[in-house]
Amino acid sequence: MAQPIADRRDVDFVLHEQLNVTQLTENDLFADFNKKTVDMIVSEARSLAIKEIMPTQQPSDEGCVFEGGQVTLPECFKRPWDLFMEGEWLGMSDDPKWGGGGMPKTVALAASEYFQGANVAFMLYHGLTHGAAKMIEEIGDDEQKKLYLKNLYSGKWAGTMLLTEACAGSDVGALETVAEKNADGTYSIVGNKIFISGGEQNMTENIVHPVLARIKGAPAGTRGISLFLVPKFRVNADGSLGEFNDVVCTGIEHKMGINGSATCSLTLGGAGKCIGTLLGEENKGMRSMFIMMNDARQLVGLQGFAVATTSYMHALAYARERIQGANMLKPQDGGVPIIQHPDVRRQLLEMKSMVEGIRSLIYFSGMCHDRVKLAKDAAEKAEYSELLEILTPIIKGYVTDKANEVCSHGVQVYGGYGFCKDFPVEQLLRDSRIFQIYEGTNGIQSMDLLGRKIGMNKGKPFMGFLGRIKEAIDKAKGIQGLEAMAAKAEKTYTLYTEVVGEIAKAAMGEKVLNAFAQSHPLLTATGDLTMAWMLLWRAAVASDALAKAKGKDAAFYEGQIKTCEFFVNNTLFITEGRLNAIKNMNGAVVEISEDAFGTK
Amino acid sequence: MAQPIADRRDVDFVLHEQLNVTQLTENDLFADFNKKTVDMIVSEARSLAIKEIMPTQQPSDEGCVFEGGQVTLPECFKRPWDLFMEGEWLGMSDDPKWGGGGMPKTVALAASEYFQGANVAFMLYHGLTHGAAKMIEEIGDDEQKKLYLKNLYSGKWAGTMLLTEACAGSDVGALETVAEKNADGTYSIVGNKIFISGGEQNMTENIVHPVLARIKGAPAGTRGISLFLVPKFRVNADGSLGEFNDVVCTGIEHKMGINGSATCSLTLGGAGKCIGTLLGEENKGMRSMFIMMNDARQLVGLQGFAVATTSYMHALAYARERIQGANMLKPQDGGVPIIQHPDVRRQLLEMKSMVEGIRSLIYFSGMCHDRVKLAKDAAEKAEYSELLEILTPIIKGYVTDKANEVCSHGVQVYGGYGFCKDFPVEQLLRDSRIFQIYEGTNGIQSMDLLGRKIGMNKGKPFMGFLGRIKEAIDKAKGIQGLEAMAAKAEKTYTLYTEVVGEIAKAAMGEKVLNAFAQSHPLLTATGDLTMAWMLLWRAAVASDALAKAKGKDAAFYEGQIKTCEFFVNNTLFITEGRLNAIKNMNGAVVEISEDAFGTK
Repeated sequence: MAQPIADRRDVDFVLHEQLNVTQLTENDLFADFNKKTVDMIVSEARSLAIKEIMPTQQPSDEGCVFEGGQVTLPECFKRPWDLFMEGEWLGMSDDPKWGGGGMPKTVALAASEYFQGANVAFMLYHGLTHGAAKMIEEIGDDEQKKLYLKNLYSGKWAGTMLLTEACAGSDVGALETVAEKNADGTYSIVGNKIFISGGEQNMTENIVHPVLARIKGAPAGTRGISLFLVPKFRVNADGSLGEFNDVVCTGIEHKMGINGSATCSLTLGGAGKCIGTLLGEENKGMRSMFIMMNDARQLVGLQGFAVATTSYMHALAYARERIQGANMLKPQDGGVPIIQHPDVRRQLLEMKSMVEGIRSLIYFSGMCHDRVKLAKDAAEKAEYSELLEILTPIIKGYVTDKANEVCSHGVQVYGGYGFCKDFPVEQLLRDSRIFQIYEGTNGIQSMDLLGRKIGMNKGKPFMGFLGRIKEAIDKAKGIQGLEAMAAKAEKTYTLYTEVVGEIAKAAMGEKVLNAFAQSHPLLTATGDLTMAWMLLWRAAVASDALAKAKGKDAAFYEGQIKTCEFFVNNTLFITEGRLNAIKNMNGAVVEISEDAFGTK
Repeated sequence: MAQPIADRRDVDFVLHEQLNVTQLTENDLFADFNKKTVDMIVSEARSLAIKEIMPTQQPSDEGCVFEGGQVTLPECFKRPWDLFMEGEWLGMSDDPKWGGGGMPKTVALAASEYFQGANVAFMLYHGLTHGAAKMIEEIGDDEQKKLYLKNLYSGKWAGTMLLTEACAGSDVGALETVAEKNADGTYSIVGNKIFISGGEQNMTENIVHPVLARIKGAPAGTRGISLFLVPKFRVNADGSLGEFNDVVCTGIEHKMGINGSATCSLTLGGAGKCIGTLLGEENKGMRSMFIMMNDARQLVGLQGFAVATTSYMHALAYARERIQGANMLKPQDGGVPIIQHPDVRRQLLEMKSMVEGIRSLIYFSGMCHDRVKLAKDAAEKAEYSELLEILTPIIKGYVTDKANEVCSHGVQVYGGYGFCKDFPVEQLLRDSRIFQIYEGTNGIQSMDLLGRKIGMNKGKPFMGFLGRIKEAIDKAKGIQGLEAMAAKAEKTYTLYTEVVGEIAKAAMGEKVLNAFAQSHPLLTATGDLTMAWMLLWRAAVASDALAKAKGKDAAFYEGQIKTCEFFVNNTLFITEGRLNAIKNMNGAVVEISEDAFGTK
């Protein structure tokens, strides 16, 4: 396949034509990242992803092996892990002070799309290692930074996140792991954690676990939770490894997908010898978690997106090759590639409109991160960081819902072959299903949108978000050929603003349960509208460029306009139907008795 | 769990209260099937399914073993296979002349729901055996009936269906298997078949393959296809087994789900020794296939439904037990079962409305079969058989799309546990994905609806189908408490009739491709409307019964009304949006160039 994982033409389109990423070079911080450098970074990431990581995808599906407390990862992981670290990809957009590459997040996300799309299970080890390092960088003390940061950013050690317990999943505040202060200021940790990605593995010489636990005597619920740094092997003051820290892996999960990622159950302090250091302040663990949570949730959106674009690339290549059935207009001519059949084209356009709209959204979120970093004043900083907060449940929730749908279309385009493990779309669909669940289920994301993000700061940031959508619609209205699409999108936009006002009001009143019964549909409608924004923006850029374009470029730009036309004229009608249902805010979900759901 | 697979109360409701199945006893043919007998049949099926078949579900996921041309099934299959056959369940609604049980199909489907829901992969062997037997019964000659029927209906031998080849999937007419007539009237068969469920296995002493092949010199395409009966071991004139018939299994597929079903590649006549007898007439193979195809497609709908109801039962039980998070109205009271959370209730109601609407639809299709059998005259017979033809793409296509969605909700309700193989919902989701593909992809089903069924016999049968929906709406309009739901459904109905007229007209004109680009959305809208019919019908029956009901019964009937209210006030709005998109019939899908889908 000429374009595995992602269509490079489209990656470049978003970076350079839609987002104009090299405008960031105006600022000293990003002065080095001119077009040539950006393109080289993407090319190198793409090459590493395709040549070294992608070949691990299928073997990785066979999973990890647990035996006697040890977890063995697929052997093929070691080489790409080392190459990835040697290439200094882990901290590519982080502070050079800790070994980071200091590149714009927008560019880093384009590179990451290739890495994640090549093997999302393998990349989980990187994601968690980066997350743990980032957390130490943000809230750790100097000693912790000195002992851990360099070894994490370099990939010598790996990181995790110990949050979930059997009775504390969505309800983190219910956790039971206990920390007791020792005379030397360290803490003894005792507890059991589950669903720990990379909780144990044989790829790195140490593993660093940030652990949520409750200090003895601390308040119940989330207000009594603290964060601790608990390494697998203790770290001596000179940075060398000390004795085993009593973090014992008791088993791994057997899962539907992402089988290359070891999902571990860990027992801490079973022998009374698990020691941790406080990370951040006592009882402020949840607040620290929330700092990282936006990043973690955006990463999950990226995972979903990367798996979806990979599925689209496979389905498209297959639809162009697979001969089956005649063209409806020329039955006498015999078999044609299935891309000629209307229902296959419909499915491919469902996939394309989602994959491309989401690519724009995710890279745009990177641009927001960069703008936060470069902000001239507090107001600009707040504008972009609040916009990111609003986009987060959309990127985590909506994107991963749609990614799963895209992957399901990918299977369907392959027909019977799509159900067989010999073809890549099968694994991608299984892999994609977890993203709707972890880092806060998509139900939780929808509650975050309705309950926190819409009303945040008296609704001003949300009004700003809507304003940007309106701006894109208004711009498209003035472009020849886009007027009708823009008008249709405006109709949906107007209905949305009306409905969101009503439901936000209801969520604060007596009908709060009725409102929250519509939170997930609202997330879907909000995501659809966000896609309309991104696709109209794309179509506007493509319309400008089309005048001077020829050959392949002309086809590409025409494709942008047709994709937007498809989305606006099909998906947005469904969005309107959904908005009408939300507006209706029917009470059946709330009123039906528990018994009436079915016989016990 | 008190109610695994299906809620018995709801099964009884559809059989006795909605469809009034015992009215069939008025006819001599079904005189024995009074309420007591019907209930006993369902109870026995339920008991066999739960005690003997359900325990094979998880082991069955480990799959079959292929070695040296032999396929070994999970060992646990043998006992339930024998018990099923001893209980004479295979031919429960077939002609007693061949060992059938002669029961109404409506009742047989209730029994089958339990069997299929217990282990759908295991039940595929039964489904195909039954299909092969039925085909021989319908079009075989006396010799074939004598040699094969009893052994198939008794489960001594198993049956299959050899249709697909590597280059002939959806396009059956492209097949390359060849038959050459021998001097004794038999045919020598040579070819390669793929995706053959149960093509080879060690559970029965013989396997009977109906095979699609082209007689040497026959026309190309579907007009030159004939059907042959090809046993694994030849059958002597006295019924005893003869020599191996050169049907060699060359491998099995490794799949996403239904792993207990061996999906085989078969080479016929590789050593020149595969002999078959003509089944039916020369070159009429496709016509014979079509006779069976409605049954086969309805069976796939049943498979999807049974997996979905099982997932719902699990998710409901889990949601009632799993403590996580506080009730939004009483945050101070601490953790509650997640069934109290609005978004979980919404998901459960999405599942419930689908599962119950589909149960009514499928049992109703059984009633149509029974009415065909009992018909007083040709007109009545035609009415019900044509209605069945219209319902078939809905049952195969819409039901299996929705079954997959229901199973995905099942996983989501379980949260992280839903992704783990220790919990049943994970396997059910994987199993459910094939139903959208085999026996004609759901894209093919949607083309069948738009291209054949709507316009069949000048559209009269389709008008009859719509008339039944309108009747249910009108009836509900007159029932206190249902007026608003009925009015809402009528609005959708009116829009549907308008849109279906336009698209059917377009499908026969210049805009044929634009129309067929909307065939799948149209199938979805048609299915939604069918669900509205079934749920309003249920609500009407429940309203009548509620007046006299108490306790559990009252909760059940109220649940019926609330479920209909949920569907009408949520899903039907989305249906309307989809209908508006269909009406719009935008041309982007048709107009976008192949190059514009993405870089090659």
